[in-house]
Amino acid sequence: MPKKSEILEMGEKAQKASLALAKLSSRKKNTILEAIADELEARRNEIQAANKKDVQEGARNGLNAAMLDRLELNDERFSSMVKGILDVIALKDPVGDVISTWVRPNGLEIRKTRVPIGVIGIIFESRPNVTVDAAVLCFKSSNATILRGGKEAIHSNQALARAMQEGGEKKGLPPNAIQLVQTTNRSAVKELVQLEGLVDLVIPRGGESLIRAVVDDAKVPVIKHYKGICHIYVDKEADFPGAVDIIDNAKTQRPGVCNSVEKVLVHEDIAAEFLPMLANRLIAKKVELRGDPAACAHIPEAIPAKPEDWDEEYLDLILTVGVVPSVDAAIEHINRHGSRHSDAILTSREVARKKFLQEVDSATVYVNASTRFTDGNEFGLGAEIGISTDKLHARGPMGLEELTTYKFLVLGTGQVR
Amino acid sequence: MPKKSEILEMGEKAQKASLALAKLSSRKKNTILEAIADELEARRNEIQAANKKDVQEGARNGLNAAMLDRLELNDERFSSMVKGILDVIALKDPVGDVISTWVRPNGLEIRKTRVPIGVIGIIFESRPNVTVDAAVLCFKSSNATILRGGKEAIHSNQALARAMQEGGEKKGLPPNAIQLVQTTNRSAVKELVQLEGLVDLVIPRGGESLIRAVVDDAKVPVIKHYKGICHIYVDKEADFPGAVDIIDNAKTQRPGVCNSVEKVLVHEDIAAEFLPMLANRLIAKKVELRGDPAACAHIPEAIPAKPEDWDEEYLDLILTVGVVPSVDAAIEHINRHGSRHSDAILTSREVARKKFLQEVDSATVYVNASTRFTDGNEFGLGAEIGISTDKLHARGPMGLEELTTYKFLVLGTGQVR
Repeated sequence: MPKKSEILEMGEKAQKASLALAKLSSRKKNTILEAIADELEARRNEIQAANKKDVQEGARNGLNAAMLDRLELNDERFSSMVKGILDVIALKDPVGDVISTWVRPNGLEIRKTRVPIGVIGIIFESRPNVTVDAAVLCFKSSNATILRGGKEAIHSNQALARAMQEGGEKKGLPPNAIQLVQTTNRSAVKELVQLEGLVDLVIPRGGESLIRAVVDDAKVPVIKHYKGICHIYVDKEADFPGAVDIIDNAKTQRPGVCNSVEKVLVHEDIAAEFLPMLANRLIAKKVELRGDPAACAHIPEAIPAKPEDWDEEYLDLILTVGVVPSVDAAIEHINRHGSRHSDAILTSREVARKKFLQEVDSATVYVNASTRFTDGNEFGLGAEIGISTDKLHARGPMGLEELTTYKFLVLGTGQVR
Repeated sequence: MPKKSEILEMGEKAQKASLALAKLSSRKKNTILEAIADELEARRNEIQAANKKDVQEGARNGLNAAMLDRLELNDERFSSMVKGILDVIALKDPVGDVISTWVRPNGLEIRKTRVPIGVIGIIFESRPNVTVDAAVLCFKSSNATILRGGKEAIHSNQALARAMQEGGEKKGLPPNAIQLVQTTNRSAVKELVQLEGLVDLVIPRGGESLIRAVVDDAKVPVIKHYKGICHIYVDKEADFPGAVDIIDNAKTQRPGVCNSVEKVLVHEDIAAEFLPMLANRLIAKKVELRGDPAACAHIPEAIPAKPEDWDEEYLDLILTVGVVPSVDAAIEHINRHGSRHSDAILTSREVARKKFLQEVDSATVYVNASTRFTDGNEFGLGAEIGISTDKLHARGPMGLEELTTYKFLVLGTGQVR
């Protein structure tokens, strides 16, 4: 018999662990999480030494400054990572919740009950803290995890995964509940995302190219978002200073994230008055403006937008601005060019607000607020495993509840059909 | 520019239709459903003539009697199909329901709101009534459908789809809300299940080979069940006559369906007393019994089971019986050999019941009832688009609610981050 591959063996072990995890009480899980936090603190020096090795190798291998920064697990990040575990301990455990229950005329009692998903694969890039953040959220929701980080962070990730598993086991973490893929070759990812029947869900976290590669190979369900091309539409009746503040915030507060605004659409009736106000503020904040001909007519500093500008996620201080004749035109544009992530209308008109909320087909639709609020913490979920622009299972920010599924318990007294 | 394929064009039209569907009120949708029912009745002769053509061609092409029977849309089936539409009219529309709502400390109001999924592809085999059942459920939940039936039913399906679309349009059904794939070659299915960004969900309905083919090709999410290997475990303390009734019902009432029982496990303490009682009843009902050595020791008529018997869905009057030492052993067997569809424990012991409900990892887990109740109507969902053994999005019987997803509406007053 040929030797089983590392990945297949991990999948089988994870499935076994997932059945053991499903039996743990919330109290027990919190005790284990405390032990994990303690162990990470106890091994801080050892883990940071492993991280230093990754950073040094990365520098030798020519990683750029931004990548080296993401890789580094400095004191502040380490403490914040451990504090994240304490935050998760405080969150309500969704497993076991009865979602709904009813009794059929024949006396059968049906209980739709929240249960863990099972085995979750997390595929991510260079930030080593994702190893802990993801494993801890999956564990709190009683899921087994198979983690696969970037190869440039392998020493950090090995030290973190070992500390979590060994620390947790002191208080009863089932063996193999948290596993890290040890090989760093690409084929391991492909094998992992094809383990039908063993891996129940894969969540890729990283740039669009990583996610596309995962989706292309996957046979198991994947929840993800490719990118965030977020829009703000300024309606013909809106609070102009408020609108400028919101767009400024959505563009400049943190331009490199998926919920920052990339496109602004303005109603033609207010373009002449509003666009110069907006341009003043954004140019002062060093934002490069690109515009369609109507927008450029009111913003002398704007560069003419190319057709592809409407479909590009800049993740930078660049904004494309267009003029539309109506809220309907804005909605149509957003449904065609958007990424179904987060889109906003700024308006004081009830009819426009209602239409926009109903017809924009995005995970999160805003009225009179910045798109930057699409985030697990900002939504009050406590923590976030990711954001989904998919339509099935979970949409928008995903917290603990989105790491669960349900099963039906049917309680009878001898009923036959 | 090369000509667009039929399927791509259908996908684009369906997406456009789905945006129009999302705007329809429940009242409007019910009026359209009435018009569809009326039109089908008005064209009954025309549709049955098309169906006769399919049946005659099928007979010429050598379809067997069971397949010809499934293909036939006789008077009774036609009436029941139309009555099904009236049943769906009576169902509550889930679209627009607010699932939960909360206000953040900064004043943002978040509303998690039920919305249609968008475009749903339905791939099915020879029963033409599925064309209507599926389209009507998808429409009531404001989804556009692309239907792809078996090639042997193409004339029936064309007549049915045309009647639904044309009848509905009289009352405002958006164009292309209900489309039928016209080509009957296999490559059309492959193209359909790869229309990322246009098709949001595919539901295959049919035998395991059809479903495997769809899953292998799919790039868009698929919800399905491959098969139902349902178990009943008889615990050491159970009502024996009740247990015999339940197993008899689960095996013989309709052996060819996915929720019929295929395997029975019996606790070793009661095997000597219970198995002969069970065998008496089932043999009288012409059930072929296969058993492990311990079961065969108590059932002289049983054939020794082969290892592969434990993983086979018979869909026939065949049952494999085994003896286990404990409820834990039963659970382990079911989690290894089952299909995560429907499994039951028959017991009067609270501890066994609790353990089984928690640890069996199936969509529906029963206590003291027949597995045959896993069904949208029996669950009280009103109608059923299918049964899922997947873990993501929907598990078990899927009704209207499972044809929806959600989006977040966030209502602000100028909040920035």
